[in-house]
Amino acid sequence: MSNAELDRLRDRLDEINAELLSLISERAEVVREIGTVKEKQGVPKFDPEREKQMLEKLVSSNKGPFTNSTIRTLFKQIFQASLDLQSAEHKKSLLVSRKTRKEDTVIELPQGVLVGGAASLMVAGPCSVESEEQTRTVAAALAKAGIKVMRGGAFKPRTSPYDFQGLGMDGLRILREAADEYGLLTISEIVDPAHIEPALDYVDVIQIGARNMQNFELLKAAGEVRKPVLLKRGLAATLEEFIHAAEYIMSRGNTEVMLIERGIRTYEKWTRNTLDISAVPILKQETHLPVLVDVTHSTGRKDILVPCAKAGLAAGADGIMVEVHPDPATALSDAAQQLNIEEFNQFYNDVKASGLFRQ
Amino acid sequence: MSNAELDRLRDRLDEINAELLSLISERAEVVREIGTVKEKQGVPKFDPEREKQMLEKLVSSNKGPFTNSTIRTLFKQIFQASLDLQSAEHKKSLLVSRKTRKEDTVIELPQGVLVGGAASLMVAGPCSVESEEQTRTVAAALAKAGIKVMRGGAFKPRTSPYDFQGLGMDGLRILREAADEYGLLTISEIVDPAHIEPALDYVDVIQIGARNMQNFELLKAAGEVRKPVLLKRGLAATLEEFIHAAEYIMSRGNTEVMLIERGIRTYEKWTRNTLDISAVPILKQETHLPVLVDVTHSTGRKDILVPCAKAGLAAGADGIMVEVHPDPATALSDAAQQLNIEEFNQFYNDVKASGLFRQ
Amino acid sequence: MSNAELDRLRDRLDEINAELLSLISERAEVVREIGTVKEKQGVPKFDPEREKQMLEKLVSSNKGPFTNSTIRTLFKQIFQASLDLQSAEHKKSLLVSRKTRKEDTVIELPQGVLVGGAASLMVAGPCSVESEEQTRTVAAALAKAGIKVMRGGAFKPRTSPYDFQGLGMDGLRILREAADEYGLLTISEIVDPAHIEPALDYVDVIQIGARNMQNFELLKAAGEVRKPVLLKRGLAATLEEFIHAAEYIMSRGNTEVMLIERGIRTYEKWTRNTLDISAVPILKQETHLPVLVDVTHSTGRKDILVPCAKAGLAAGADGIMVEVHPDPATALSDAAQQLNIEEFNQFYNDVKASGLFRQ
Amino acid sequence: MSNAELDRLRDRLDEINAELLSLISERAEVVREIGTVKEKQGVPKFDPEREKQMLEKLVSSNKGPFTNSTIRTLFKQIFQASLDLQSAEHKKSLLVSRKTRKEDTVIELPQGVLVGGAASLMVAGPCSVESEEQTRTVAAALAKAGIKVMRGGAFKPRTSPYDFQGLGMDGLRILREAADEYGLLTISEIVDPAHIEPALDYVDVIQIGARNMQNFELLKAAGEVRKPVLLKRGLAATLEEFIHAAEYIMSRGNTEVMLIERGIRTYEKWTRNTLDISAVPILKQETHLPVLVDVTHSTGRKDILVPCAKAGLAAGADGIMVEVHPDPATALSDAAQQLNIEEFNQFYNDVKASGLFRQ
Repeated sequence: MSNAELDRLRDRLDEINAELLSLISERAEVVREIGTVKEKQGVPKFDPEREKQMLEKLVSSNKGPFTNSTIRTLFKQIFQASLDLQSAEHKKSLLVSRKTRKEDTVIELPQGVLVGGAASLMVAGPCSVESEEQTRTVAAALAKAGIKVMRGGAFKPRTSPYDFQGLGMDGLRILREAADEYGLLTISEIVDPAHIEPALDYVDVIQIGARNMQNFELLKAAGEVRKPVLLKRGLAATLEEFIHAAEYIMSRGNTEVMLIERGIRTYEKWTRNTLDISAVPILKQETHLPVLVDVTHSTGRKDILVPCAKAGLAAGADGIMVEVHPDPATALSDAAQQLNIEEFNQFYNDVKASGLFRQ
Repeated sequence: MSNAELDRLRDRLDEINAELLSLISERAEVVREIGTVKEKQGVPKFDPEREKQMLEKLVSSNKGPFTNSTIRTLFKQIFQASLDLQSAEHKKSLLVSRKTRKEDTVIELPQGVLVGGAASLMVAGPCSVESEEQTRTVAAALAKAGIKVMRGGAFKPRTSPYDFQGLGMDGLRILREAADEYGLLTISEIVDPAHIEPALDYVDVIQIGARNMQNFELLKAAGEVRKPVLLKRGLAATLEEFIHAAEYIMSRGNTEVMLIERGIRTYEKWTRNTLDISAVPILKQETHLPVLVDVTHSTGRKDILVPCAKAGLAAGADGIMVEVHPDPATALSDAAQQLNIEEFNQFYNDVKASGLFRQ
Repeated sequence: MSNAELDRLRDRLDEINAELLSLISERAEVVREIGTVKEKQGVPKFDPEREKQMLEKLVSSNKGPFTNSTIRTLFKQIFQASLDLQSAEHKKSLLVSRKTRKEDTVIELPQGVLVGGAASLMVAGPCSVESEEQTRTVAAALAKAGIKVMRGGAFKPRTSPYDFQGLGMDGLRILREAADEYGLLTISEIVDPAHIEPALDYVDVIQIGARNMQNFELLKAAGEVRKPVLLKRGLAATLEEFIHAAEYIMSRGNTEVMLIERGIRTYEKWTRNTLDISAVPILKQETHLPVLVDVTHSTGRKDILVPCAKAGLAAGADGIMVEVHPDPATALSDAAQQLNIEEFNQFYNDVKASGLFRQ
Repeated sequence: MSNAELDRLRDRLDEINAELLSLISERAEVVREIGTVKEKQGVPKFDPEREKQMLEKLVSSNKGPFTNSTIRTLFKQIFQASLDLQSAEHKKSLLVSRKTRKEDTVIELPQGVLVGGAASLMVAGPCSVESEEQTRTVAAALAKAGIKVMRGGAFKPRTSPYDFQGLGMDGLRILREAADEYGLLTISEIVDPAHIEPALDYVDVIQIGARNMQNFELLKAAGEVRKPVLLKRGLAATLEEFIHAAEYIMSRGNTEVMLIERGIRTYEKWTRNTLDISAVPILKQETHLPVLVDVTHSTGRKDILVPCAKAGLAAGADGIMVEVHPDPATALSDAAQQLNIEEFNQFYNDVKASGLFRQ
């Protein structure tokens, strides 16, 4: 008997489900029509006051068995779904999103260097530009090793105001000259919106650092120019925040954005940060942008750079960034974690030998 | 015109909302009836196979505008709400929950010491029981200061197997004897389900440590006896996990459970852990159990114990735990963070002087 | 016999210790003399090249039993101690440090409002300035409740570029006018170095937000003006980073800096962030600056604002910040966590009733 | 002149360094001799009381320029180095350490299956053993795919006491029978020290789960038997804690320990946990044990299992663990993240196709 009873109840459930589906679908159409009217009037689509009224009306006619609080929650979700229909089209149109653009964005740097294409990219260079000699020494070594893009910091965001803050515009000039002498391209971090314009002559890629990932004025300024941008993930930024930071740049018209995972802040102390390797495939899925991995800052340990670079590439990264200094022991910043030139050559050879670095 | 149009659309929205409410409420009743039938049959209420079928049926008749994926999500929420109606009654009946029991649980220890009542509790004592002399020295000092409950570790969970592991049952005996001599009660950590029974003669409160907060076999064993339990929050446990760990104990019949916040693991390095002060009011709201704050382990710094104890009490804690050792520099564990006796007296006086420690 | 042997060995140990002390002290004097010479020559005191040579020399004459690596580590520590002697004097002279200035910094705002003095400060106001009406409604309510400083965001750093970004300079003007009408002072966040100057007419306190705590260009710009600054701790900033961020401002000449703890990012999900209560006493010890607690952002939950505000005050905070909105449900940002006016009045009364809010 | 002066000062520095070296080395010899005497007497080598006396003596004769506090710190380090000389030999002798055993430990399971050797290992199976049919279905599929080791939980540590807790010993029997039928080996988690012995008939590898990584009584019990153990990293365990947890097992005589990284708890919400990929090379360097990566629990997302498995292998992991269920939607635990059989076959083929899975 009870099985017959169960069947009857289940049939009724199916009927109710079907009616709900039909009503919810109709509801979405009505909301869409309201949206169209509002758009014509130039009024924002989401009207919290009206939503409140609707919820009050529902609650006041609620006879159970759901509590008023459940009714509120459930209908907020239904309301939200209708709104999402419109913003999903909106989210679908997030410029960085893979939904907006199916194909990978491939960024063309000068000298035909491509980022995000068939070949992997290795970016190397000193933490800071310290002197012409130091920079030229690295440039020569990188060029000899076959590297095409050199990094070097001229504006250094440092925890203490009394630490070496970089050589500023002079540093950018030194970097450019050394790079030109050895046929290299340049990446350098810019920290002030007002420096973006003047830096354009010196850098082939503008880097936005981890501490500035949500410096929205800087992101907007970087969005206004037509120069590739390498955006670092913030010290403790979620992937959602990271993607939206990139959107700030793209929404201003600069479509050449590269993302770089550089480790996140966790409780673990045997590494400087924790390399969030899952960020690589997630960013590749969610966006169409090139994704790099900074093995130096994410680990802070020279002894695991090779396996971490290989892991990054295996996870789908388009490139690797690593710090190299002619004499790390005397470096003005990041002394402990930069490779010397011999170590870099060994590192690069090991990474290439793995077959994961596409050449 | 468009306003009339808007009004018309909004009226239709209100109608749809009302119909949805009516259907959803009816749906809940049907689900409840099914639940009753199933209960009689001894079959679990949640039937994932059936849910899958219902979702498939809905998706197959979905004509838009929602995507199938939104329909799935929305209906899962509706299904969930109906199930929740039953499990809300279930959750309402979580034994630790404030919904189950409105009044604060007040635990009565021997000698009429109450925890969770009108007076605040100060628990003090050494990290480890190291010797009779050390334990008696602390006991004498605590008794003199007016303290009623002494802590002292006999089974020490230590990171390395080669570190001092505590004196075991001998330690419990030493603790008990010293406590008895000075008229104190005892709290000590038990780490093995098999030790719960034998420990009952020696401890007035069984402590379950942070590393064992999800050692469910130990929780169950502690739930089987009739002795108050002090449960520490895990190193990186969420509050939800913490509450459910307490439920493991209560679900076995032991209703005398106290919770203690002892700091969580974060990236900050100037404190040993991060004292999560919001845990105190949340635990007081969500449960009816007494809540303490362990200022020693949460901070690991002697210089901020007073303000942190005051903060704990101001946030609503029923008591404070602190470590005291006759000669912290020579302690076999936690050397850096235990107060000596003079420091403890100062600490206790300062806390009492704040007026936050209810006497 | 072996005890005599032990005594002999221990005597020799004491002799060696004494000789080491004498040598290390002499060493420090020599290093200091070298420093003086270098200072005259304008050469940096730390010479990594020279340190390297000294280590090499030591290692090459090391005959054991220590490994070369231990010798390096040990002597680096000895070298470091000598250098620290000089930089300790340097650190002692960190401008924010309690060592530099023993007394609490008390900041005098217009109308004789003091921060960091005998009375506690309550800062309240909406997350965002949305309209004249909304702002005036809050201002009227705050004035009636006896509040003297109103917050209100005009430049809103938002995760998405498509979220409400604040009314900008218009928002500042609205805030100022409403504040003036009701005799209140204003606090508002500035996000672009270029906006600091123009904002001076509208705000009594410049707020630097969590996302910009290490936007060093903004810190420097705030350091150049003579207007009090309220600096928020970064989302995942260490206390060391926080203190140094304040130093960036002070090092430019602006001595009126207030610090505000606003919760840090952890794994716990029942609160928006984790209020790091130990930050309060540590910041009060390490610096001489006023310290506030933002209960709204640290918890993200209206139901625990009172206990958290009390905890903040008990821990030594000089003030509390809380968000208030005439109709939180319709707020353009932070809708879920702002108090409405009635709730705010209740909150403020409860906090005052605790006796912890010094009036 | 000042250069001559500099040279003179530097010469004196070199002399002092040499004398310090000689004294420190002699000191170490004396400490070693004392250690030998103490060993004969059966007295612990570290005597905190004596250390305190030495420090007091030094401080009392300190005439500057170092503060007493620096002298304490410096000499504690010197004392420590001498002690470390003995414990370094001790640490060198940590059984899990690569210093103790240069070669990789290769664990031989029945049927000649090797872990940590030339071939990579793929462990797959359902989160929980739910029924004979479910388990046999998976076993058949795994055997067909060429998998040799099947996992399946019989004792499930669950946050809530009311969640499905596994089938217990019945589950182990079902797992064993299904495995035997299809020629597979078994891995299953044990949570109670008392279950280790009875489980030996059913499992080829004992798993110790993340929540029990510091359940030291369980570790000791697992150390007493002669059956390979797979030890999971705790939810928020440091690598140091992880290694020492393994040492607990080895110190009891069980040398067949495998480590498995399964993600750590961080603030990021787009993954269930954060796969700490650097753990793999660090564990391989610091220990001689096989290291696996659990891609299911570390990510909690089916869509990134392939890149994360590849990253794990590229980083040096000896194997991968993944959850497979005939019908994940109806699973009694981990419903959202288990692969169905078709998905598993695709996953395994993709991993093998990368060339990173050594066969």
